[in-house]
Amino acid sequence: MKKIPIIIDCDPGCDDTIALLLAFANKSLDIRGITVSAGNVHINNTTENTRRLVGAFNSKIKIAKGCEKPMFKTIVTAPEVHGESGLGEVVLPRTEKELETLNAVEFLSKILRDTTEKITVVITGPMTNIAVFLMTYPELKEKIEKFVIMGGSSIGGNVTPAAEFNIYVDAEAADIVFKSGVEIVLCPLDVTMNAFVEEEELLRIKSIGTLAADIAFGAINHALNFYKDTYGRKNVPMHDPCTIAYLLKEDMFEGKKVFVGTELKGEFTYGETIIDYNDKLKQPKNALVLNKINREAFIEMLYNSIKSL
Amino acid sequence: MKKIPIIIDCDPGCDDTIALLLAFANKSLDIRGITVSAGNVHINNTTENTRRLVGAFNSKIKIAKGCEKPMFKTIVTAPEVHGESGLGEVVLPRTEKELETLNAVEFLSKILRDTTEKITVVITGPMTNIAVFLMTYPELKEKIEKFVIMGGSSIGGNVTPAAEFNIYVDAEAADIVFKSGVEIVLCPLDVTMNAFVEEEELLRIKSIGTLAADIAFGAINHALNFYKDTYGRKNVPMHDPCTIAYLLKEDMFEGKKVFVGTELKGEFTYGETIIDYNDKLKQPKNALVLNKINREAFIEMLYNSIKSL
Amino acid sequence: MKKIPIIIDCDPGCDDTIALLLAFANKSLDIRGITVSAGNVHINNTTENTRRLVGAFNSKIKIAKGCEKPMFKTIVTAPEVHGESGLGEVVLPRTEKELETLNAVEFLSKILRDTTEKITVVITGPMTNIAVFLMTYPELKEKIEKFVIMGGSSIGGNVTPAAEFNIYVDAEAADIVFKSGVEIVLCPLDVTMNAFVEEEELLRIKSIGTLAADIAFGAINHALNFYKDTYGRKNVPMHDPCTIAYLLKEDMFEGKKVFVGTELKGEFTYGETIIDYNDKLKQPKNALVLNKINREAFIEMLYNSIKSL
Amino acid sequence: MKKIPIIIDCDPGCDDTIALLLAFANKSLDIRGITVSAGNVHINNTTENTRRLVGAFNSKIKIAKGCEKPMFKTIVTAPEVHGESGLGEVVLPRTEKELETLNAVEFLSKILRDTTEKITVVITGPMTNIAVFLMTYPELKEKIEKFVIMGGSSIGGNVTPAAEFNIYVDAEAADIVFKSGVEIVLCPLDVTMNAFVEEEELLRIKSIGTLAADIAFGAINHALNFYKDTYGRKNVPMHDPCTIAYLLKEDMFEGKKVFVGTELKGEFTYGETIIDYNDKLKQPKNALVLNKINREAFIEMLYNSIKSL
Repeated sequence: MKKIPIIIDCDPGCDDTIALLLAFANKSLDIRGITVSAGNVHINNTTENTRRLVGAFNSKIKIAKGCEKPMFKTIVTAPEVHGESGLGEVVLPRTEKELETLNAVEFLSKILRDTTEKITVVITGPMTNIAVFLMTYPELKEKIEKFVIMGGSSIGGNVTPAAEFNIYVDAEAADIVFKSGVEIVLCPLDVTMNAFVEEEELLRIKSIGTLAADIAFGAINHALNFYKDTYGRKNVPMHDPCTIAYLLKEDMFEGKKVFVGTELKGEFTYGETIIDYNDKLKQPKNALVLNKINREAFIEMLYNSIKSL
Repeated sequence: MKKIPIIIDCDPGCDDTIALLLAFANKSLDIRGITVSAGNVHINNTTENTRRLVGAFNSKIKIAKGCEKPMFKTIVTAPEVHGESGLGEVVLPRTEKELETLNAVEFLSKILRDTTEKITVVITGPMTNIAVFLMTYPELKEKIEKFVIMGGSSIGGNVTPAAEFNIYVDAEAADIVFKSGVEIVLCPLDVTMNAFVEEEELLRIKSIGTLAADIAFGAINHALNFYKDTYGRKNVPMHDPCTIAYLLKEDMFEGKKVFVGTELKGEFTYGETIIDYNDKLKQPKNALVLNKINREAFIEMLYNSIKSL
Repeated sequence: MKKIPIIIDCDPGCDDTIALLLAFANKSLDIRGITVSAGNVHINNTTENTRRLVGAFNSKIKIAKGCEKPMFKTIVTAPEVHGESGLGEVVLPRTEKELETLNAVEFLSKILRDTTEKITVVITGPMTNIAVFLMTYPELKEKIEKFVIMGGSSIGGNVTPAAEFNIYVDAEAADIVFKSGVEIVLCPLDVTMNAFVEEEELLRIKSIGTLAADIAFGAINHALNFYKDTYGRKNVPMHDPCTIAYLLKEDMFEGKKVFVGTELKGEFTYGETIIDYNDKLKQPKNALVLNKINREAFIEMLYNSIKSL
Repeated sequence: MKKIPIIIDCDPGCDDTIALLLAFANKSLDIRGITVSAGNVHINNTTENTRRLVGAFNSKIKIAKGCEKPMFKTIVTAPEVHGESGLGEVVLPRTEKELETLNAVEFLSKILRDTTEKITVVITGPMTNIAVFLMTYPELKEKIEKFVIMGGSSIGGNVTPAAEFNIYVDAEAADIVFKSGVEIVLCPLDVTMNAFVEEEELLRIKSIGTLAADIAFGAINHALNFYKDTYGRKNVPMHDPCTIAYLLKEDMFEGKKVFVGTELKGEFTYGETIIDYNDKLKQPKNALVLNKINREAFIEMLYNSIKSL
């Protein structure tokens, strides 16, 4: 079977980490590079986490560091969710793995200029790198197969009452991506809140007993504790992994092709995604928005993937 | 038992009509006056509908006509939901009932200036009348027991993807009301979408066979057809009646005291209500927001009330 | 000669005081009433100043107190320009003169409902009273001959770099007035900055030696000191008196009929007036904007008017 | 004397052309490269004009083509001012001169990465290229001596009543540049409207009789006709040349170090520059804003420069 060539733009981050493990574990994905964004924590931490994860599991993957801050706003991070380091109490093994000398935008342009086949770009953090890339190299858009994005919500936000974190951190960047004309698959909270891991499922992952399992357990458990304390939930949504899961097994998801807009001007609603399921706005449909998941199948994929590493 | 003195500010409208019938039927409410707003249809239609309903069921109630249009925006109406007249195909009996010579704002000031006990103001349409009243007579706020309002949503809108109709029509007015300092009970779509009437329940109402039942059936059935055609729903939410139902039987509802804000600046989100259930914004809690209803009890109240008229 | 019937809506205020003296002195104006707004200082101070000025010079004029605060914003006042009392160090004589029991909005409606001839409304402060009046009584618009307004600027603001004080204090109210459809004559900073009094001209006024002259000197001198200290100017613009001067002697002014809009959304430009002299926006022309004045004639009118009191 | 190393980012354009001629003529400037922006006309035209001007006068200068459109808005051009080609009726000689293969952002990064001395960046068009560069290569800011920018106005706009063209075309880009922390010298309409050429002065330039003089005459005359027809002016402001003139002879100008902000949210004021001469906003002063020019000296410089080519 032909492998799916992908680039991952991420800010690990507890759930980014699970997304990366999922990608590392599945040989049907051909990871052409990882670009790192600022978001869950500072760019230096997200870059270090990426470097160590790649060093531990697939040290051939190239990594480029991205933009330090959003296009217009001051950076907002979420240490209360992901811990100061971005991975809670998890201590990743040190590595000799080196970063590219090119920055994320240059690295994206190099990969996409040189490729003969189109590449899918997975985005699991704020979209600053991708937006700046699109502005500098509009002619390379045609080399992108599609964007698969974790972000947004039509059911209320997680950072403000209206906005989801990844979009809120750099809504102007998100706006540029949503308007780019590139095909988009969006995993908003609508679907990711249902992609949750129960506590016993987490313990089953832990029982695998490998390095990957330890990391996965630590990252998920840290997030679980946040959800318990803050929302009284006894399970924890796996936001970012939905993107990779979709690439691995589309039919695990349901969705609808609709218009998605980004609110840039609201007093209370900056960073809200408008997901126009009922076509009230009569705008061109620019994204396939996922809103249902076969959770059992997803958990099974997660378990098997981590076990295989 | 002491009666609850109320003023109703409404724009009938199919579901306003059901709210009025509910209020007319229950002697525990002392209706001190009705002020009419523009909204579901033009002010002339909402006023005529109010006049005829009062004429048919309780011709002593005083009625004052209100503001023709919103504070800043052009009027938006919803004839696609309520029909051109505001009541679908329902033809109400003619009446000699006359309007007050005072306009709604003057009438509100007269009632509230003269009252010795505080009065509850029920609002089931856009809030223009009430906002203009609050600006002209801030000193009369203290005569208002509370506002019980149908409006807003945290689960997506019904006129835009983000905004509910009553707020959207005059969001600036809503903002003034929400910031007034008066106690507020809010019935947003969060609760009213669950206050629905099933088709067989509607037929049971029809079978009562009285004028009130005919009107109720006609108004609800018109709205039902809209929900069927537009959303594929087989039942119809009774938005406005929730306000009166709350006054009649509070314990039919659950809610939470939270901050409610109104988005006035968004490109996509004008008129969205921000209902901060998780206190993300750390703002003063200005409204008791209802979000659960005992639907069976509500339907029973509806049936019995209409039967008693 | 037929007198011009006018209502004055003002917030005295140093330059409002001069405008009132100008109006009191000229028998060609028939002052049907004064409504008081909040602005330069708190409503209680502007009302007290109005009461004492009327008591001293024309105690038959009826006065009604207006809205305490702007429609949406918190009140902004300018004690640094007008002193804490609104009149610098001027101490006005006490008076028995009583206020109307009606508030400003009710009083406006009473005068305009009862009049058989159209009345000109002069506005020299924030426009809250007038905007609320227009919303409550839209049918009385036709009784207004025109608005003559001091406010706005196309040459930079005096409270922010973009906004003039009267508009900035309640820009939403200004927007309602500018969009009302009533004929408008606007005196923005474009003209009022050239309606200045030189120090020696002020001393000439003082030398008249009457109560009116003392009050005028005190009020103007207080403002002069502010302009000296803040802008290094050696003269002081008479903003509000331009409105009355226009009514007394139109040909002292030049202007152009243009579109005037009000910025309500800007981050830096809230309350800026857009005066579209070159018709860039192709909007309906809603105001005659004055931008030139015969200063010598204006000073002569000022001197003679004060002398005549 | 040490030469001043500069990069010019421009969108020729009639007045850009004069700015370029001024720069070509003065050996005290060391032009390290020209990057081309979209603005006055489409990027293809501004690039072609730049190529031909460089080909005719200094074919060693490297040219890189920039971003085709603004960061967020649709491109707005001004063919009514500059003609369809961007240079009115002027036909520039064909040339073999080739563009760099790097785009403007890459080219800027290459020059600035390689330089050991700081370089001044002159900007005479919309600032898209520079803003995207700043986002991709924030670490290269320290290689920029300063920005010398034609843009903005505190005296009303030329594209809307509030906004000057260069800022209006891409206000988000301008905002990024103004907030970059790099030293800024700004030539807004405040100064450039006084840097005008009278008709007889233009004829004197024409009489030089060289290719440079013909081009200068044609470009200026085209703009003059626009100013005559549109504003009834009998002279034509030389906006862009002020930037180069400032570098050549600073003491020809007066200015003030103040805060400059960019309005991104206004309904009427999008793209307005807030130039806070009186420090009303108490913001950090980020630009030296020029507002006076010795016009006679400027005209003399213009004449002599063109004559020397």
